[in-house]
Amino acid sequence: MTLPEDFTFVQGKVKTIFALDEPDKVLIQYEDKVTAGNGKKVDFPEGKGQVCCEISEFLFQQLEKRGIKTHYDSMPTHRAMACKKVDIIPIEVVVRNVAAGSIVRQTTLEEGRIINYPLVEWFLKDDEKDDPLLTVDRINLMGDYPLKELEYQAREVNAILKSIFDQIDLTLVDFKLEFGYDSGQNLLLADELSPDGMRLWKKGTKERFDKDLFRKDEGDIVEAYKYILQKLRQIS
Amino acid sequence: MTLPEDFTFVQGKVKTIFALDEPDKVLIQYEDKVTAGNGKKVDFPEGKGQVCCEISEFLFQQLEKRGIKTHYDSMPTHRAMACKKVDIIPIEVVVRNVAAGSIVRQTTLEEGRIINYPLVEWFLKDDEKDDPLLTVDRINLMGDYPLKELEYQAREVNAILKSIFDQIDLTLVDFKLEFGYDSGQNLLLADELSPDGMRLWKKGTKERFDKDLFRKDEGDIVEAYKYILQKLRQIS
Repeated sequence: MTLPEDFTFVQGKVKTIFALDEPDKVLIQYEDKVTAGNGKKVDFPEGKGQVCCEISEFLFQQLEKRGIKTHYDSMPTHRAMACKKVDIIPIEVVVRNVAAGSIVRQTTLEEGRIINYPLVEWFLKDDEKDDPLLTVDRINLMGDYPLKELEYQAREVNAILKSIFDQIDLTLVDFKLEFGYDSGQNLLLADELSPDGMRLWKKGTKERFDKDLFRKDEGDIVEAYKYILQKLRQIS
Repeated sequence: MTLPEDFTFVQGKVKTIFALDEPDKVLIQYEDKVTAGNGKKVDFPEGKGQVCCEISEFLFQQLEKRGIKTHYDSMPTHRAMACKKVDIIPIEVVVRNVAAGSIVRQTTLEEGRIINYPLVEWFLKDDEKDDPLLTVDRINLMGDYPLKELEYQAREVNAILKSIFDQIDLTLVDFKLEFGYDSGQNLLLADELSPDGMRLWKKGTKERFDKDLFRKDEGDIVEAYKYILQKLRQIS
């Protein structure tokens, strides 16, 4: 979401951003809310905000340890994260290790097809347009975006996250990243890192531990997310 | 559309393909029918089949004269074309000289934005999936397609068609091509070449002479197409 220059808070689909006294920081509160189909399907599961916030914190910290620059600063409450304020680049970066979701609906690839050289894809961050797929040619016509740097960062993040989830017996199928620039023009990984924005399958199966449980009415996401958080904490 | 091995006729959205005694040829009949939104909107304007068939014949002949290999053979009736039978490659090739249509809905580009180096784009030919945009990476995962050759052919066709329409004071905004292989494995330009599959604007304006008149309920396509045909015949 875009932050106006002079804001006290901005309401996103499942997160609220609050201004802080320090002008370079914001507080991102994770709501007990889940949406799918670009907001068409909505629910308000108790505890969902907290577990997404805690998984995000865990993953941002792991990435920072391994040299990835992120917007994460600290977690002052149980479901809100203090972050560096960034100007979000309006291009979502998706990394795919296994075919699932939109790539299956939009190609002849079958769900579960392993993608040996992970695919880095670009989507326009625009809910009104339904976050459409972009080609590099289309992006280059739209403006000057640091695609090479974004792709490099996304592949690094993929390698790290894959190895983390591997340790808890989950396959990282795909995930979405957002990046932004802080006031010093540093490129930072931003947004959220939770099973709301990734697909995680129990290794060797297609048993889901991610938002597809909600999209397809196949189970309780809060329970699945809590399982992941508990497993992650055992390896830290 | 895909032709079964042993067919007498196959009904497409606006064309019917008939088997001929010569096994390497088919008869493609252009129906008095127009559809938009992947068949959601339909009309049956009298004379539409004939004018599309005649414009297609004209353009296929012009392209053949300039060295492009096409499926066109002859036009034995006023709205049916004898063509070489081809196995269609299930990837539609779109060339864009000016931004309009889906690229405007799916990016931040504005309608009318001139694309100096024409954009060659790929779409999956699959009505059930709504002909989605493809990236080269997605295509390479799907299979082995001759993208370099298709792009080269599409750029050649673009240069020729642009110069033809330029002579009748129309801007060739964009168009869709389909290619296929004949029994000798020659790559041929196939399908149809009419204002059903291209956008044509009166030069210096956005006045439409194409299927957008029907999509947007802005005028009589048969009248517009007949105007184009008459103008084309004056330059031949």
